[in-house]
Amino acid sequence: MEKFELYILGCGAALPTPHHFCSSQVLNIREKLFMIDCAEGTQMQLRRSKLKMQNIHNIFITHLHGDHCFGLIGLLSTLALLGRTATLHVWGPTGMKEIFQPQIDFFCAGTTYSIELHEVSHRQSEVIYEDRSVTISTLPLKHRVPCIGYLFQEKPLLPHIRRDAIDAFGIPVSQINNIKAGMDWTTPDGEVIPNHLLTTPADPVRSFAYMSDTMYAPELTEKLQGVNLLYHEATFSKEHELLARQNFHSTASQAAMMAKEANAKQLLIGHFSSRYKDESVLLHEAQNIFPNTIAANEGMTIKL
Amino acid sequence: MEKFELYILGCGAALPTPHHFCSSQVLNIREKLFMIDCAEGTQMQLRRSKLKMQNIHNIFITHLHGDHCFGLIGLLSTLALLGRTATLHVWGPTGMKEIFQPQIDFFCAGTTYSIELHEVSHRQSEVIYEDRSVTISTLPLKHRVPCIGYLFQEKPLLPHIRRDAIDAFGIPVSQINNIKAGMDWTTPDGEVIPNHLLTTPADPVRSFAYMSDTMYAPELTEKLQGVNLLYHEATFSKEHELLARQNFHSTASQAAMMAKEANAKQLLIGHFSSRYKDESVLLHEAQNIFPNTIAANEGMTIKL
Repeated sequence: MEKFELYILGCGAALPTPHHFCSSQVLNIREKLFMIDCAEGTQMQLRRSKLKMQNIHNIFITHLHGDHCFGLIGLLSTLALLGRTATLHVWGPTGMKEIFQPQIDFFCAGTTYSIELHEVSHRQSEVIYEDRSVTISTLPLKHRVPCIGYLFQEKPLLPHIRRDAIDAFGIPVSQINNIKAGMDWTTPDGEVIPNHLLTTPADPVRSFAYMSDTMYAPELTEKLQGVNLLYHEATFSKEHELLARQNFHSTASQAAMMAKEANAKQLLIGHFSSRYKDESVLLHEAQNIFPNTIAANEGMTIKL
Repeated sequence: MEKFELYILGCGAALPTPHHFCSSQVLNIREKLFMIDCAEGTQMQLRRSKLKMQNIHNIFITHLHGDHCFGLIGLLSTLALLGRTATLHVWGPTGMKEIFQPQIDFFCAGTTYSIELHEVSHRQSEVIYEDRSVTISTLPLKHRVPCIGYLFQEKPLLPHIRRDAIDAFGIPVSQINNIKAGMDWTTPDGEVIPNHLLTTPADPVRSFAYMSDTMYAPELTEKLQGVNLLYHEATFSKEHELLARQNFHSTASQAAMMAKEANAKQLLIGHFSSRYKDESVLLHEAQNIFPNTIAANEGMTIKL
């Protein structure tokens, strides 16, 4: 299987605590690293991980609250000090340029690499990024300020070559890519070997959705149908549902309902309020509704 | 003794590493907390310490390099989330307002407390703060960008009351402050008891100087004469003296020479380049010139 792994760098809510850093995750798709959110301390957390900082080419900021973006300038600045040359793209809501461009101009003056800020709409879902491995779309979340979720959908992989068949028919290496692409093989005698005898089906494609911070937003479940891993904020427990609503956040139950209605394969909850010393209350609450739920923790890796 | 204690929150140089956070220290003078520099992660380090975040009323930024100030907005924002009401003063070089005021306006909008930014000159030493416990002056450092050191000088303390003498002469409690202030005591019989029989001398005043980042600046030693604790950056070892000079930094030997020429009581070195896996090379180099040298480390407390 090609790599499709998620790393948790921070999963606390508004206030960093001795237990949790604020929000940041990294999705590794075939050795390309996509960072989502970049709270204070993210660069330190990256150093503690085995992730290669210089392999990050895209950073997706969900919204302009400090617990999701205060680590950005530090990370950008460190990448410059380390001599980065590759362009880095930062995606985020309207308003991002006004707040970050002056900091970049001041603190990263004369850097060896280019930083491109891309403001995207928080009002509707749209494809904002595409390469040969992945398509990335936005998800309009419901928060106090413009807030964007991100959906990462792997592109179809090529089928696997059947080594035994290739050997049996004496097919030259130069033809492997054509056969992966679907071609049949014609032997020197003119016999046509159909492609399905030469290959086994490609691995299924995988997907990951990142939803933080948001009120319960069931209108998005259609867009999320069958997602392999849904990260959903679970700031509060259901006993604080009113507080959640007032602050445009979700409860663990609501996160689980989203996963259930989206027919997600797995739910990952995070953005835990610092009021919960023990997050198992949030985990159990979600598992009651959607059993295949796990609670995020710093240093956690999830392989899809 | 009244409290005069220094806490090290971070003592690394430009890049945070698994071993060191970037620069931040807190000086506790009679339970008033003065923070010097505020790198990324400072608020997390504060939480790990026993220091009361809300007792910080003044933050002194030396210069506008990220490893000395990227934690400021996070700390200010967290203080707001925690409901602070007391005004907080931030002191730093010219240019600080232009870079921080827009961030404060955006991220701390509607906060419950007032944040006042004070730009001070980096060109000459001047008194910028005074209360009944301490006088704080600036030190013009020599760095690539405007950079300010800070000298904290405790104000003279009152003499101690001799409890035995007070009892022997039956002096009422209402007179204690007058006697501490230097008054003699006249008995009901008209006998004058001189003040020196009623008191023992006040504790000696203490001082702390913070010098980071800077080239060797011997012209400042006059101003620092007899300082109790000199914190001086020691980014490089003497074998990298040229590199130190090129980057407007100091070697451990130069830090020690400063302490020696200033007749400091103790030298604390820090701002260690991440190239040194083991900073004992820097410590030993400094101790060769100024034996009473210690190396900073996160979590360290120094009582003066």
